[in-house]
Amino acid sequence: MQSQPAGELTKPITAQRRYPQAPLVGAAAAIFDAAGRVLLVRRGRPPRQGQWGLPGGLLDLGERLVDGARREVREECAIEVEIGGLVTTFEFVQRDDDGRIEYHYVVLDYWARHLSGQAVAQDDAAAVRWVSMPELDSLDVHVETRDVIEKAFALWRAAGEG
Amino acid sequence: MQSQPAGELTKPITAQRRYPQAPLVGAAAAIFDAAGRVLLVRRGRPPRQGQWGLPGGLLDLGERLVDGARREVREECAIEVEIGGLVTTFEFVQRDDDGRIEYHYVVLDYWARHLSGQAVAQDDAAAVRWVSMPELDSLDVHVETRDVIEKAFALWRAAGEG
Repeated sequence: MQSQPAGELTKPITAQRRYPQAPLVGAAAAIFDAAGRVLLVRRGRPPRQGQWGLPGGLLDLGERLVDGARREVREECAIEVEIGGLVTTFEFVQRDDDGRIEYHYVVLDYWARHLSGQAVAQDDAAAVRWVSMPELDSLDVHVETRDVIEKAFALWRAAGEG
Repeated sequence: MQSQPAGELTKPITAQRRYPQAPLVGAAAAIFDAAGRVLLVRRGRPPRQGQWGLPGGLLDLGERLVDGARREVREECAIEVEIGGLVTTFEFVQRDDDGRIEYHYVVLDYWARHLSGQAVAQDDAAAVRWVSMPELDSLDVHVETRDVIEKAFALWRAAGEG
């Protein structure tokens, strides 16, 4: 998938996240190991603190989406991955009591293959864990995240991995 | 496709487009009529002034992607469309001579069906035209836009329209 030329610096955004001036863009990844388990991270901060979800975060300025997804995985889980393809978009809009837009995120969800490294929780991840599809039922995973994982798993299998 | 609840107001972004603080999000649509022709708009402003492309623009704050795509089509071409699905993402990063990020857009490209209305050029569209796939060769269309149109056409056909 498309990546930026080597040596071109990107930088974290300076835009405000709360009451933003425009929707903010993020990237996340459903990463599978050779056994078809997905890597979940337990969120260490609100929102959804304590819930299990996909590693990801906001795109840097000048950064390509797939590079952003890889960087966030590296920062949160300390592993290297190869992005397979786009799964879906996730949109989050939260209004305050006056109807003003308090948060607005557009997140591109990718599926990916684990390349190297042992997964360790870092940055704002409280824990990381490889989870088989049947095991998903026993974890606190948001229904929309669950849906993304199932779509991602189907694409990973269709790519001849499973 | 997902749409926001009726009655919730969205508003144009206030973020600066040149030297942005974060990547800006847009939505565009490859719209097909019953004969399988795609609707192209001739750009009335830079960049790519005079070139033919897909109708689209920046997402409003609080606006869902598919609603943004429909609104932009309405504003530029005066027609109503139904969004079929996501085709691909388009990323545009332009740096100035000092390597600073002058523009950074992430655009979600959808395919869509024409529902109603006669296409008329409005807003920043200089002209609109329904174009058959073979006719694409005779128009000034950017190679990346061409690629999006071909992927969109395949999805429109696979959905049983063609």
